[in-house]
Amino acid sequence: MNYKKPLNTSKRVLMGPGPSEVHPRVLKAMATPLIGHLDPEFVETMDDIKYMVQQTLQTENYLTFVVSAPGSAGMETCLVNLLEPGDEAVICIHGVFGGRMADIAERCGAKVTKVEAPWGEAIDPQQVKAALEKVDNPKMVAIVHAETSTGVLQPLEQISKMTHDAGALFVVDAVTSYCGTDLRVDDWGIDAIYSGTQKCLSAPPGLSPVSFSAAAIEALENRKTKVQSWFLDLSLVKNYWAGAKRAYHHTAPVSAMFALREAYQLVLEEGLENRFVRHRKNHELLKTELEALGFEFLVKEGFRLPMLNAVKVPEGMDEAVVRSQLLKEYNIEVGGGLGKFAGKLWRIGLMGESSSANHVNMLVSALRGIL
Amino acid sequence: MNYKKPLNTSKRVLMGPGPSEVHPRVLKAMATPLIGHLDPEFVETMDDIKYMVQQTLQTENYLTFVVSAPGSAGMETCLVNLLEPGDEAVICIHGVFGGRMADIAERCGAKVTKVEAPWGEAIDPQQVKAALEKVDNPKMVAIVHAETSTGVLQPLEQISKMTHDAGALFVVDAVTSYCGTDLRVDDWGIDAIYSGTQKCLSAPPGLSPVSFSAAAIEALENRKTKVQSWFLDLSLVKNYWAGAKRAYHHTAPVSAMFALREAYQLVLEEGLENRFVRHRKNHELLKTELEALGFEFLVKEGFRLPMLNAVKVPEGMDEAVVRSQLLKEYNIEVGGGLGKFAGKLWRIGLMGESSSANHVNMLVSALRGIL
Repeated sequence: MNYKKPLNTSKRVLMGPGPSEVHPRVLKAMATPLIGHLDPEFVETMDDIKYMVQQTLQTENYLTFVVSAPGSAGMETCLVNLLEPGDEAVICIHGVFGGRMADIAERCGAKVTKVEAPWGEAIDPQQVKAALEKVDNPKMVAIVHAETSTGVLQPLEQISKMTHDAGALFVVDAVTSYCGTDLRVDDWGIDAIYSGTQKCLSAPPGLSPVSFSAAAIEALENRKTKVQSWFLDLSLVKNYWAGAKRAYHHTAPVSAMFALREAYQLVLEEGLENRFVRHRKNHELLKTELEALGFEFLVKEGFRLPMLNAVKVPEGMDEAVVRSQLLKEYNIEVGGGLGKFAGKLWRIGLMGESSSANHVNMLVSALRGIL
Repeated sequence: MNYKKPLNTSKRVLMGPGPSEVHPRVLKAMATPLIGHLDPEFVETMDDIKYMVQQTLQTENYLTFVVSAPGSAGMETCLVNLLEPGDEAVICIHGVFGGRMADIAERCGAKVTKVEAPWGEAIDPQQVKAALEKVDNPKMVAIVHAETSTGVLQPLEQISKMTHDAGALFVVDAVTSYCGTDLRVDDWGIDAIYSGTQKCLSAPPGLSPVSFSAAAIEALENRKTKVQSWFLDLSLVKNYWAGAKRAYHHTAPVSAMFALREAYQLVLEEGLENRFVRHRKNHELLKTELEALGFEFLVKEGFRLPMLNAVKVPEGMDEAVVRSQLLKEYNIEVGGGLGKFAGKLWRIGLMGESSSANHVNMLVSALRGIL
């Protein structure tokens, strides 16, 4: 057994679908000795973080906070708080994560209408419009902004307008897009949004920034039934994050929050627009280099994610073998395909600290060495 | 706004109900650069942790793992996986956390029979027996081993036997007792148990070790309905923690797991029995000193938690003022009362790294200075 030995991990170059690499300042902040989760100094830390979540989501939403669990729990937070048994939900599915939303919505007892696009394509707003016309009283339309399983960037504004015209709430998964490409919660009329920390924000995995609009809060307040999850029930959580006197709900992950605060500072020091440009530029560089090596992008131009490059494995290449060689010989992690794309696709992340020309150059040179 | 400034927390002495202090080795391990959540080296880390959870829970349960969220989510994990709508659950309540279990069980659609004892007392096994006689087909009996809101250590063995005689599963909250006092999952017939990391284990808050017996797994496999939480659904989570080929479920909190591995090593290096003795000894020291200062214990001898000392605030002392002085002048955190004990009780933690003669001496000397 190795459990008695000191932790002895390799120095990895993280270019998969997350976690991305983390700045040394973030690691250092995380190693700060703990303080209590109700300490006035921790409440200040929460306030700082809340303000920086608002800045980066481009929202003034009062109910903006961080779920003490990973992005999937953020997804569940948005759905369990807004859906009651019998509610009608239109869920857009163009990859693994849309499918996960539908699964959770069904577990809430909602009647789910699925709007599906082939994996690798975006949802066409006209499909959503058609679905909304068939649903009597839609409570929400939910969609993934950056589908991590396919590399598709989903345009949101037109679908948001249709959703509101139908009197429904617009719910967005921004796990992979957040802090890597433009995302405007208020301007785009997003009512509930969740993300993760381990992608373009470049903090360790384990937390999920979430924001609810006034309309979403109203829906929460008008529920006839209790939220099925106690841990994710925002009518309780909000008293810890936003109450005048902070009421104990659960013990917040203090160290992870220290890390998150530092990661947000790095984002704001760089500036959102600069960060988006950087992600775009490194994506362009990778694209040129990979195409020269015979890789093809799955997604058509104009709909590609800058931070998550889904490329088809070239004919005749055993992807698992090459991926394992990259890890063993070069310490470089890239992601394989998820679900129906397993074995057929690579997902190359250029997220946050892992979005640099050096990362692109390391990967491309290693691939040249192997192929 | 202070959000632009570097994190600048005080060096606190943590003697509240958790988080406890963390060994420098744990902070250092947590600051290790990240690797991926599906990296073979991370899978090894998970295996090491799983083995150490088994050792410390004194169990051979195969389904032993760590929920990627705090203790409250561990509580929810045990209840949502074992309860289906209409199931009958006997929930013992002698403080805040028993009440929380009843709340969650009701959110699962279970019919809840409450067995209540006055706060500060243990549940009498005869009460459980009486309740079980009135319930047709009990699915579980759930109880808190160490009630953090009252400082009561609940004897478990007799209630476990009654529970099994009635054909039900025995579910235990061990958030505060785990790694600080004896706890034998297999010997005591515990079917589902959850804990937290920020108490006597002395890792940062944010994770919850959980273990399910064969009987609990059978109940999970025989469910007629889906688990209402996707994030906590063990039929999915188990493929990430225990499957032959580890299937992606969610992105695990890599850094927190590095910290947890180190915290477990420290526990096993000390030895469980030595650790229990240390917690008992420091509790005795604190008891002698506090009684000399006029504090009285809430709980009668024989039922007191060694790691969480619930003491009545002496007549005429403004507890909030003194508690705030302790924090401001001495950087010492102690906990106030929860729920109906707010303003009347102090909860003084001597947990994990915070259980030392030095901690007792610092607190007692500071109190002498203030009073």
